[in-house]
Amino acid sequence: MLTLTRRERFCAAHKLANPDWSDEKNEEVFGRCSNKNWHGHNYELFVTVKGEINPTTGFIIDLKWLGDLLKEKVVDPFDHRNLNLDVPNFEGKMVSTEIVAIEIWNIIQEDIKAQGAQLYCVKLNETENNSVEYWGPNQ
Amino acid sequence: MLTLTRRERFCAAHKLANPDWSDEKNEEVFGRCSNKNWHGHNYELFVTVKGEINPTTGFIIDLKWLGDLLKEKVVDPFDHRNLNLDVPNFEGKMVSTEIVAIEIWNIIQEDIKAQGAQLYCVKLNETENNSVEYWGPNQ
Amino acid sequence: MLTLTRRERFCAAHKLANPDWSDEKNEEVFGRCSNKNWHGHNYELFVTVKGEINPTTGFIIDLKWLGDLLKEKVVDPFDHRNLNLDVPNFEGKMVSTEIVAIEIWNIIQEDIKAQGAQLYCVKLNETENNSVEYWGPNQ
Amino acid sequence: MLTLTRRERFCAAHKLANPDWSDEKNEEVFGRCSNKNWHGHNYELFVTVKGEINPTTGFIIDLKWLGDLLKEKVVDPFDHRNLNLDVPNFEGKMVSTEIVAIEIWNIIQEDIKAQGAQLYCVKLNETENNSVEYWGPNQ
Amino acid sequence: MLTLTRRERFCAAHKLANPDWSDEKNEEVFGRCSNKNWHGHNYELFVTVKGEINPTTGFIIDLKWLGDLLKEKVVDPFDHRNLNLDVPNFEGKMVSTEIVAIEIWNIIQEDIKAQGAQLYCVKLNETENNSVEYWGPNQ
Amino acid sequence: MLTLTRRERFCAAHKLANPDWSDEKNEEVFGRCSNKNWHGHNYELFVTVKGEINPTTGFIIDLKWLGDLLKEKVVDPFDHRNLNLDVPNFEGKMVSTEIVAIEIWNIIQEDIKAQGAQLYCVKLNETENNSVEYWGPNQ
Repeated sequence: MLTLTRRERFCAAHKLANPDWSDEKNEEVFGRCSNKNWHGHNYELFVTVKGEINPTTGFIIDLKWLGDLLKEKVVDPFDHRNLNLDVPNFEGKMVSTEIVAIEIWNIIQEDIKAQGAQLYCVKLNETENNSVEYWGPNQ
Repeated sequence: MLTLTRRERFCAAHKLANPDWSDEKNEEVFGRCSNKNWHGHNYELFVTVKGEINPTTGFIIDLKWLGDLLKEKVVDPFDHRNLNLDVPNFEGKMVSTEIVAIEIWNIIQEDIKAQGAQLYCVKLNETENNSVEYWGPNQ
Repeated sequence: MLTLTRRERFCAAHKLANPDWSDEKNEEVFGRCSNKNWHGHNYELFVTVKGEINPTTGFIIDLKWLGDLLKEKVVDPFDHRNLNLDVPNFEGKMVSTEIVAIEIWNIIQEDIKAQGAQLYCVKLNETENNSVEYWGPNQ
Repeated sequence: MLTLTRRERFCAAHKLANPDWSDEKNEEVFGRCSNKNWHGHNYELFVTVKGEINPTTGFIIDLKWLGDLLKEKVVDPFDHRNLNLDVPNFEGKMVSTEIVAIEIWNIIQEDIKAQGAQLYCVKLNETENNSVEYWGPNQ
Repeated sequence: MLTLTRRERFCAAHKLANPDWSDEKNEEVFGRCSNKNWHGHNYELFVTVKGEINPTTGFIIDLKWLGDLLKEKVVDPFDHRNLNLDVPNFEGKMVSTEIVAIEIWNIIQEDIKAQGAQLYCVKLNETENNSVEYWGPNQ
Repeated sequence: MLTLTRRERFCAAHKLANPDWSDEKNEEVFGRCSNKNWHGHNYELFVTVKGEINPTTGFIIDLKWLGDLLKEKVVDPFDHRNLNLDVPNFEGKMVSTEIVAIEIWNIIQEDIKAQGAQLYCVKLNETENNSVEYWGPNQ
């Protein structure tokens, strides 16, 4: 098995708050992450793609193409945005790192498949101490 | 000369927008940093203190004391907050990295002087590519 | 599959020496790592947990809970200690990075299971060049 | 499952160009990576080995032995070299990160097997944004 | 004093060899750095600018402007190039990290002055272990 | 002004305890750092040298020479040692990061001067959060 990983970054505001709960309950469960005026992060994204080597290029997939895909479909809509308010993908959803990672998977997997490769893992670092990895619904 | 540096971190939302300007002008000058629904960062703070060695401890200053000071006076009020809305220090100010660094200097310098040392530099990283250093008003 | 990773750190002294061997044999096998007066490291620990998303929180597991567990069960007893002399878990054991990682797995796995999640991987960096990953006895 | 990872580094020049293609075609497919006068990288290599713990040492494999193997078989022939011109392993091959990672696997796997362990993964970072992992032909 | 630092990166090939010396002498003085077929690095550049805060923006200098300047004047001509062969600035010069840092200073200082700020330091990391800082001819 | 920096690393045990004080007093002042069975760190050392460029090499100083000096005079005697017990330089001294940095300055400054350059700064990171810089007795 051979995989290729591309890193991208985006800076965004968010908060964790269940709209069905009172402020007190949200504060109790999410602590400072539920701050009503938001907080934010420098998110660091690692997208890993699996595939066979194309013998004429030596590539699994063109890294420039992958970088451009991530910039167009993820970085451009997420960067310097409020994930809860500005990004339609998170409407009605909890904006936890887990759910952001799954959503990124859903946004890009078809495009990667169409290139003849397979999305293998989406890793999202929220801080230097906290991160999430999603390997897709079938693994 | 001998200096000691302590790193702390805080995650916060902010935006860059001059209230005297139209949205168009702010967008023109600050680009995505003026997004009205905010964005955010993992700020990384390095506080450097200058002083003489205390021969009984081998320390310029007690690092635990310095870490506790930064946690109480900077990290606790700034972390998981909106710097523009939640932190009184930035009321009526532009919340650029430059101004956040200067404000941190102003918040902590007296306490450090009272310990017999001297604040030497406040470095604030906004992203891995952008940072500011402030050496105080007299240098 | 979805996993969540929490990083913690501890600074500790240790040495590598088989008590059944002579000093010469230990020196021959372990080199400087067998220095009789100890040496030490800034250990960097990454604990990865696997699970399903709780739809009311968006979380696999509460990261604050996981961080507190690691601080109580690993960082507090290991940090600023001599792993060979001060930590009962290593009594009569070789204190290699491999064995420290396995021991951390054993210390925390029940608590994580009791939270409804599953311990997936314990990664332990001894230096920037050397690290170990343990995925448990069944994998 | 238990694995051990050793990091090594080498600095090398290379280019990406298919000798069967015109300069224009190479430029179109590989962009600046096909620059005829070469470019280069600080490659960062992570070699992961899988095995059982030797109870007398607490080791899967002797890290010093692994580091020495990598220095002799990979770092010494690759470092401060032109991978296309100076390293016979890449004669007639595309020198993509994918192919360099596979070649490193092939160079070292027998020696690791002979030590009673198993090569598990070769990870090669070309830049902070781009990396490849190879888990061998049977996975 | 207040400074702002912008990081950029470029990947390039180079070699160290004095054209007035024999191959043997170059090998003796520069070792592997004189490899005739080149080697290369991921150079990491930190440009630090000093100035006063513009009260309407909170900025010393517009970071986007600074990033664009560095991309146009340094990254674009240096990245994925052979510094010795492809970059006219190094014609007839030794391409040591010291001289690359000084050359970058010379390339950008006028533009920064024209913006009303002052170039303060050019830091260039060649590897994680080796770096150079240049503070200009007057300091 | 032009400076060159070389990074080296060493792993060592130490403790902070004033021999004139009771265990209780040491515990009160130094907390866990006074643990009688030691603790340890991965120390990261940055040595910065100032000088003029040698026009025949493009170097301030030969980095290989500087690395070899640091390995011989600092890394070899300090690495995998107990700084308090095994390193004569610290006999009768507090082994704080401040004092280790000053001692390293004293060990290497004459050799650097003899090469025609000038030691400018010794930076020592004890952890990712704590570091010390020493610029010598005359600055």
